[in-house]
Amino acid sequence: MKLIIDAMGGDNAPQAPVEAGARAARELGINIVLVGKEQVLKNELSRYTYPEDKLEIVNADEVITNHEEPVKAVKTKKNSSLVVAARMLRNKEGDAMRAMGNTGPLLAAGLLIVGRIRGILRPALATLLPTENGPKLLLDAGANTNCKPENLVQFAVMGSIYMKNVMSVEMPSVGLMSIGEEEGKGDDLTKKTFSKLKSAPINFYGNIEGRDVMLGTTDVMVCDGFVGNVVLKTVEGMGSFLGKSLKRMFLKNAVTKIGALCLSSGVKELKQLIDYREYGGAPLLGVRSTVIKGHGSSDAKAVFSAIKQAKKAVETNIVEEIKSSLTKIDLSEKKEEI
Amino acid sequence: MKLIIDAMGGDNAPQAPVEAGARAARELGINIVLVGKEQVLKNELSRYTYPEDKLEIVNADEVITNHEEPVKAVKTKKNSSLVVAARMLRNKEGDAMRAMGNTGPLLAAGLLIVGRIRGILRPALATLLPTENGPKLLLDAGANTNCKPENLVQFAVMGSIYMKNVMSVEMPSVGLMSIGEEEGKGDDLTKKTFSKLKSAPINFYGNIEGRDVMLGTTDVMVCDGFVGNVVLKTVEGMGSFLGKSLKRMFLKNAVTKIGALCLSSGVKELKQLIDYREYGGAPLLGVRSTVIKGHGSSDAKAVFSAIKQAKKAVETNIVEEIKSSLTKIDLSEKKEEI
Repeated sequence: MKLIIDAMGGDNAPQAPVEAGARAARELGINIVLVGKEQVLKNELSRYTYPEDKLEIVNADEVITNHEEPVKAVKTKKNSSLVVAARMLRNKEGDAMRAMGNTGPLLAAGLLIVGRIRGILRPALATLLPTENGPKLLLDAGANTNCKPENLVQFAVMGSIYMKNVMSVEMPSVGLMSIGEEEGKGDDLTKKTFSKLKSAPINFYGNIEGRDVMLGTTDVMVCDGFVGNVVLKTVEGMGSFLGKSLKRMFLKNAVTKIGALCLSSGVKELKQLIDYREYGGAPLLGVRSTVIKGHGSSDAKAVFSAIKQAKKAVETNIVEEIKSSLTKIDLSEKKEEI
Repeated sequence: MKLIIDAMGGDNAPQAPVEAGARAARELGINIVLVGKEQVLKNELSRYTYPEDKLEIVNADEVITNHEEPVKAVKTKKNSSLVVAARMLRNKEGDAMRAMGNTGPLLAAGLLIVGRIRGILRPALATLLPTENGPKLLLDAGANTNCKPENLVQFAVMGSIYMKNVMSVEMPSVGLMSIGEEEGKGDDLTKKTFSKLKSAPINFYGNIEGRDVMLGTTDVMVCDGFVGNVVLKTVEGMGSFLGKSLKRMFLKNAVTKIGALCLSSGVKELKQLIDYREYGGAPLLGVRSTVIKGHGSSDAKAVFSAIKQAKKAVETNIVEEIKSSLTKIDLSEKKEEI
């Protein structure tokens, strides 16, 4: 398989994607394409060893910055690393693509260049969250606001396929994010979605609440992208608050520094548990090829995790499985409407 | 002033409300009414000292349980402690009321018995969250789903008055919970609300995101009750996750136990920071008298905090100020509609 990496996006580009790309070519036996400014990438690449037949550079001179309007940027910057990578993916010059940085341009490239799977109403950005119960998938994490029940049903199906194929969870359970456990609780959207999820081809758990996020009550958490994005950023904010609080606590004085030393292995474990880098990136589900979005601050380790994730998504044929699941969802939808 | 306490609700009733009520009568110089099963309350009260002229018991034989449909329970259980307390408040036999336990029945009692302030479209449940920047107010925290922009504008105004009067914040800043900082970001509701908040009589900061919750970027965070409830419970879940993680880390072995000892003062500070008990309860804003909802698991300390909070709300005339603010909001609303 061949993985296309936009090597210019994110805070640590091009170092992180180049280092991870070289490592992937070396360790995973897959072909890597690094897309970006050729000379910059060549220089960076010279610091690493890698099998030359497994790694190529494709030149792309432009870079989309954080301040550009996403759709416009993707439409006009034809030679940006993101657009070149997405075009290669659409033209089947690679099996999957990995980009990082701002969500907007990646979504735009995914929708406008790679394209939706026919029948998918709105692709969803899914994100793996660390929980007490292992990594769980939250979707939509911000690609779609003002969702309809049909969107959430498709998110539930796509999320289930992802957890089954990439995270090896048998019969992933799906929770509908709401504000009460009972069927009747929630807002108009969740109430309408609940009955549709009951007849969807998934292992539906029922409603979940905010407290279930960190408990990891279900393998998949389904919600409108507004809610999902607020939840995701709240969790990230709590994680960073926790990190800062611990640091302050540890560095207070000589005694607390000894305390920190005594606890170092436990702190490391906790850090690892809530470290997004362990979990790779956020897949954009519902587009015609595997597209993984990395966190803007991804380092080489995070990029490498995302590459492994993309590899598994390709090997387990996520896209094809989503396509074939659509017949099942559509049928149950039509039945309800009759 | 006289504070009415539903002494039968919550996990630690009647012990926690009775202990806190006795303490409040002793220390705060206010009159306390404990509503509930007379003999039970008398027995509990005999364990504490208090000025007898400042504390009375009003009998209420029934108790609303967690499993009852809130509106029905409030309408039929006329002798429940909650309904008796709310009726006393409506009849001006007290200045404020404090109840704890499930949100549903309290909201129903607030709306159906105490009643909305004329002009308030939907009262809001507001909750103080611990942040890096001190306690901040999130509303609506779950009383209202499917809000309209007009609701959010009223929440913003009521939240500002609360933070100014009860938390002594001059010119409280108000953030609109959204999924991007710029004005155009968000869903249909937040986009429409943004422009209305710009002309509302508040110190409007603009959009905030999930990560601003723990940063405490603004004094007031405004959102639909679905979003607010999910955020609140996500934060509570993260807090509990953090507590469990630290405990596990500390108790791992002899060395980590020493570490925990070295850090005990810092841990205590952190616990205190994220301890809901320090922040009292959640005010129901927009009803005709001060109503404070306590956390279901409130202990005596938490109830006492909530009593102090209710006292300040009464002393600073929150209800009157909300009433008189309405003319300002209504005017700006009408202007926009013309």
